[in-house]
Amino acid sequence: MKINPRCTYCLLSRIHYQCNLVTDDADLINKAMKECISTLNDEYDPSRTSTHIGTAVHRRCFEVLGNHDPYKEVKEINNQTALELLPSVQKKIYGVNENGEAHTIESSPQPLEESFEKAVLAAVIGNYFDFGVMGLDATDEGFKLLFDSFFEKGFDINDTKEMMNRLQKVVYMTDNCGEIVYDREVLKIIKHIQQLQYTKIENETEKNPNALIPELILVVRGAPILTDATMKDVDELGMKSIADKVLTTGSNAVGIIFEEAPPETLKAMEDATLIISKGMANFESLSDEKSVRPIAFLLRTKCEAVAEALGIEMGQSVAKLEIE
Amino acid sequence: MKINPRCTYCLLSRIHYQCNLVTDDADLINKAMKECISTLNDEYDPSRTSTHIGTAVHRRCFEVLGNHDPYKEVKEINNQTALELLPSVQKKIYGVNENGEAHTIESSPQPLEESFEKAVLAAVIGNYFDFGVMGLDATDEGFKLLFDSFFEKGFDINDTKEMMNRLQKVVYMTDNCGEIVYDREVLKIIKHIQQLQYTKIENETEKNPNALIPELILVVRGAPILTDATMKDVDELGMKSIADKVLTTGSNAVGIIFEEAPPETLKAMEDATLIISKGMANFESLSDEKSVRPIAFLLRTKCEAVAEALGIEMGQSVAKLEIE
Repeated sequence: MKINPRCTYCLLSRIHYQCNLVTDDADLINKAMKECISTLNDEYDPSRTSTHIGTAVHRRCFEVLGNHDPYKEVKEINNQTALELLPSVQKKIYGVNENGEAHTIESSPQPLEESFEKAVLAAVIGNYFDFGVMGLDATDEGFKLLFDSFFEKGFDINDTKEMMNRLQKVVYMTDNCGEIVYDREVLKIIKHIQQLQYTKIENETEKNPNALIPELILVVRGAPILTDATMKDVDELGMKSIADKVLTTGSNAVGIIFEEAPPETLKAMEDATLIISKGMANFESLSDEKSVRPIAFLLRTKCEAVAEALGIEMGQSVAKLEIE
Repeated sequence: MKINPRCTYCLLSRIHYQCNLVTDDADLINKAMKECISTLNDEYDPSRTSTHIGTAVHRRCFEVLGNHDPYKEVKEINNQTALELLPSVQKKIYGVNENGEAHTIESSPQPLEESFEKAVLAAVIGNYFDFGVMGLDATDEGFKLLFDSFFEKGFDINDTKEMMNRLQKVVYMTDNCGEIVYDREVLKIIKHIQQLQYTKIENETEKNPNALIPELILVVRGAPILTDATMKDVDELGMKSIADKVLTTGSNAVGIIFEEAPPETLKAMEDATLIISKGMANFESLSDEKSVRPIAFLLRTKCEAVAEALGIEMGQSVAKLEIE
């Protein structure tokens, strides 16, 4: 996505917000603002990708603040809160058993595609909540009500069925902490589907030696940026055992900058039968990169710039597959 | 008020908003954003007054757009809407007579200080509404409900009694169109009070030849900026007959920049027994100018930067007198 005029003030607002997270030194905050305006002035060009400009501005901010992870505590709270709310989210995804608990993937009586669709929806709704920032806790009725209403409304764009047909080699690019807890459910279902398919293909390999061996690769940020998930979160949430491999974007870029990405990550994206791109930053990085396809953009439209680029309204739940 | 980090993104957001008012040419909007970021970068200095920086950025925007009055239509709608809502506001200020209509200043049974306080409150609440932008019309129940609730809540800072004792030589600096219709009620009451005092003083002049002859001077912007009132509005709303004199700030500065103000305006401010400064822009221009006193700041705290500078919360109704 090319930078939108709206991104300029949203970016400065975010810079100010993150300054306040780490310091109450007004002079330092003023200095960071000044330097970031200067960087924005140097970098701003309507023909450039929004996340490239955002990355440069955030890096300058981190330098001035002398802090390269302003959201460290927020991210921990986000994961913790999302985990506390997980049982109720799992009930929505898999249904409730006779003990009043959530079904598992295996025990759920509903078709697998329904669990997949609901898990993706939960992960997309999770993309809306900035748990720590919103001061949510596990008992927060507001969260449950809002989550319920989003869940009931369902997708505004729903390509989950088409996604289901492309799950042989998946690259799943995460966005924020917090929601990553619900991404984990999607990953578990993808792996489950792959294992079913894998058995099938193994049986067929004798007939077709070119059959694809299923693979699930998780890609997180290479270093802290905003509230985005990194390898630390993958470790703490035990996600390494679900994915076949965990790679990174290679840097603290907002979204991904190809020039900074490890060759292995780029190769995985190239080989994938489906890239699943979570959140707005990944969308901004990848929406114009037409060679990176097929891709499914999973997100809530939380800003007008992204909504406009998708040609839809704000506040929508999206699972949009782009084949080419 | 010194520029606050928040002002930077608020300003760029406002620039983008006003670009969209006058054009849908994306290239022109991008150019205006780029030029305004550059001007902001040149001008930003935490030790400078927010409105000085805002003025420079807005002027650059007007230049690029080739339009020096982007809010022309909005201002007309604002005045028109405020006029349509005036009868209900007058009832709140003066009370209702036996015919169900609003009392006049003269017929109102309540003490004059009560009419003054209520008129100032209405004018301050008017400062909250950007009528055209909010899509209000005369039948809008939302406006009436919100106005009622603000009116019922009253002032959070109320120095109207102390203001009443200083009305001999008043300079009244207006802010936006729309609310200026309610400012007119305040001006009428001030003039009424002055006429009562004038009679008294005329009788006393034989005894005291140095007694002040009351004067009511209205100051509007010297040229269009934002939705602020100019001489055109004063003419159209018949306000020349209420004030003894109407002066201007001498330019399209946000608030007032002394270097650009006519000597007559500066002299009037110097001689005033009370300057009444309406709205946030005038507050930002004058809060640190301690020589411009006594001054009464009438405003709603619509942004955190101004609320913080006043040491109060957002969304408060303020009539704050500063003697020195």
